[in-house]
Amino acid sequence: MDAEIIAVGSELLLGQIANTNGQFLSRQFAEMGINVFYHTVAGDNAGRLKSAIEAAEKRANLIVFTGGLGPTKDDLTKETISKHLGKKLVYDEAALASIKAYFQKTGREMTENNKKQALILEGSEVLPNDHGMAPGMVLDSNGKSYMLLPGPPKEMNPMFVSYGHKSLMGKLDKHEIIESKVLRFFGIGEALLETRIADLLDGQGNPTIAPLASDGEVTLRITAKNESREKCAELIQQAEKSIMERVGKYYYGEGDTSLIKELVKEMTARGLTIASAESLTGGMFQEQLTTIPGAGKIFKGGVVAYSTEVKEKVLKITPETISSHGVVSMECAGEMAVNIRTMMDADVGISFTGVAGPDEQEGKPVGTVFIGISIGDKKPIIERLNLSGSRAQIRMRSVKYGCRFLIRRLKDLI
Amino acid sequence: MDAEIIAVGSELLLGQIANTNGQFLSRQFAEMGINVFYHTVAGDNAGRLKSAIEAAEKRANLIVFTGGLGPTKDDLTKETISKHLGKKLVYDEAALASIKAYFQKTGREMTENNKKQALILEGSEVLPNDHGMAPGMVLDSNGKSYMLLPGPPKEMNPMFVSYGHKSLMGKLDKHEIIESKVLRFFGIGEALLETRIADLLDGQGNPTIAPLASDGEVTLRITAKNESREKCAELIQQAEKSIMERVGKYYYGEGDTSLIKELVKEMTARGLTIASAESLTGGMFQEQLTTIPGAGKIFKGGVVAYSTEVKEKVLKITPETISSHGVVSMECAGEMAVNIRTMMDADVGISFTGVAGPDEQEGKPVGTVFIGISIGDKKPIIERLNLSGSRAQIRMRSVKYGCRFLIRRLKDLI
Repeated sequence: MDAEIIAVGSELLLGQIANTNGQFLSRQFAEMGINVFYHTVAGDNAGRLKSAIEAAEKRANLIVFTGGLGPTKDDLTKETISKHLGKKLVYDEAALASIKAYFQKTGREMTENNKKQALILEGSEVLPNDHGMAPGMVLDSNGKSYMLLPGPPKEMNPMFVSYGHKSLMGKLDKHEIIESKVLRFFGIGEALLETRIADLLDGQGNPTIAPLASDGEVTLRITAKNESREKCAELIQQAEKSIMERVGKYYYGEGDTSLIKELVKEMTARGLTIASAESLTGGMFQEQLTTIPGAGKIFKGGVVAYSTEVKEKVLKITPETISSHGVVSMECAGEMAVNIRTMMDADVGISFTGVAGPDEQEGKPVGTVFIGISIGDKKPIIERLNLSGSRAQIRMRSVKYGCRFLIRRLKDLI
Repeated sequence: MDAEIIAVGSELLLGQIANTNGQFLSRQFAEMGINVFYHTVAGDNAGRLKSAIEAAEKRANLIVFTGGLGPTKDDLTKETISKHLGKKLVYDEAALASIKAYFQKTGREMTENNKKQALILEGSEVLPNDHGMAPGMVLDSNGKSYMLLPGPPKEMNPMFVSYGHKSLMGKLDKHEIIESKVLRFFGIGEALLETRIADLLDGQGNPTIAPLASDGEVTLRITAKNESREKCAELIQQAEKSIMERVGKYYYGEGDTSLIKELVKEMTARGLTIASAESLTGGMFQEQLTTIPGAGKIFKGGVVAYSTEVKEKVLKITPETISSHGVVSMECAGEMAVNIRTMMDADVGISFTGVAGPDEQEGKPVGTVFIGISIGDKKPIIERLNLSGSRAQIRMRSVKYGCRFLIRRLKDLI
């Protein structure tokens, strides 16, 4: 099955938002074994949307629309498809009822334009909207399937997972299975990693190996096709083995994970608690740690010591350390890690101090970063980094390096 | 001038990343008065890329490509366009030199496949890459302009701003000017806001008014077209006046701003310093504050008191408060705000405590949030919120409400 995803909305063409719906659906389709050869974005304009539909019909047998199902005048996806396919728009009673219920539940004021959201293409399968008002729908016409989904991700994503996915699985021919596995690497550039595995990339057929660099990390997606799930797993395992032989030392996890998730996993497995003292990262390490439900089991708390005054007064960094070495120093990072651990009565203390930019500090160049790790009564270990990139990149990479250092420390790799 | 943006990369069709380049360029083009009617995403496949180019040539006279200029075998944008237009690929000496220089500067290992990045379409204008290796280029052929940009945003964005923008301005017919202004609102839903300004949306022509909801905020983009800049400004001003009469109480800023930026602006203008105590937000307020260069002038630091123990031991919340009211309470939020202010010796203290979910806490439902604000010796003010949405949304909205409460407090609006 070949799909094309058409995102509808002038806000996309004006650059007010990115097409994250295209990304979400593409990932879902990749896992379902549905090919996606094109994404198209069209504005809130019936004529141009119609021509996008005609182009898609030439190259796909599943056309998925997101956006333009809302209450306002410029929402015209249903209307355009209705005219294009010659199908009537009719009120869906269940949708109308749930729209009314939604307004009662949220206590918001129901306006007339909201009723329009209960209109569906006659003869289509309705996809309920558990997080908003506009229902989605799937219509089969002239040997093609048309799926309409709402634009807001918080409505579209759960609608697809709960109802759209099932509806499509029914249409899929099951002969070929596609399995893929994502391996995540940190601390090596894309070109260098690809050179190290060049022989595998050149020789690839089934499975395929697709590298991708983002946020200072590189991922390799191994994708295998076969009629048997077992054979797919075997093909992936062989490729993975060869990859790890070459660049295994930079590997940190697989699939939908991140360095911070891996850190929480390692800390939880060991029943250890952590506290953090942050300067240049301004609380980013703690903020990311606490995005993960259950982080409360391992995270006690932390101090963001942005001013030197707070480093002395709250974190109790000795004035001598600051006067003789500065706040951006091995010595300061070490004291920060030890003091936050004892202050918060945690098993592990981690600290971040450095120069995020745009200006240098204490004569130290932008990108100079010190990360301190204090475990129990052991002598603290301090890592020095010289990072490049923007202020945001330096802060983000500092947090990632902090996670990697600590994970390795916990595993006694360093 | 009508543009179409073609993003090239199978990682986009596999959903590994979103097409943020399409968003960035669309925003730039909107400001330059270049129409963007379609975005297309094609994979690393010469045949399908070629057909995407042919479709774009039918509907645009400026075709902008991002991605596929890299060193690896699946980077084939230049090669495909070269064949399609019958233009040779030649080495650009300057680019070759800067690639070598780049490797010296970063001390990374130069691999043979990197040379490929110095190939350009013969006769094209080269756009230097100040943040990476692959140069961009602009080629005029058969009355159309083709602009090739690299895929990584950290290379593409500055390349366009520094060189691509200028190159396009030279090609623009200057007769019509397009000006737009974005107004930002917080605390009102999209449908309700649109109902309040329905008369304006119905009557619109020039200027146009485009609403967009995201991250719990609503923006209105007013766009005016005219031959005179003054007339554009006048049209926008009239529309803005009518909008503010109807929904002005929810307005917080215009253009490329955010609640956190507005807060930094207000604090800086008053020469006040701030410290924060965070529980459910886990440091998000501080992290966002410190994304802004110069935040050091107003931000002293903060404590993330994730565990009750740290609330008592570090923030000195009285045990009675916790035992009789709990940590998710008006009383605790008030003490947190006052204590962090005095502890960090700041003019303002702000606190966040609540239930981010997924589970309820102290019998209080998910979404219960208390925000405390302590200014000087004044009695602290505590705001109670009942937020809906995911754990991430509740944390994010708490921070935004905190900013809004404090801004209003500073302006004595509440």
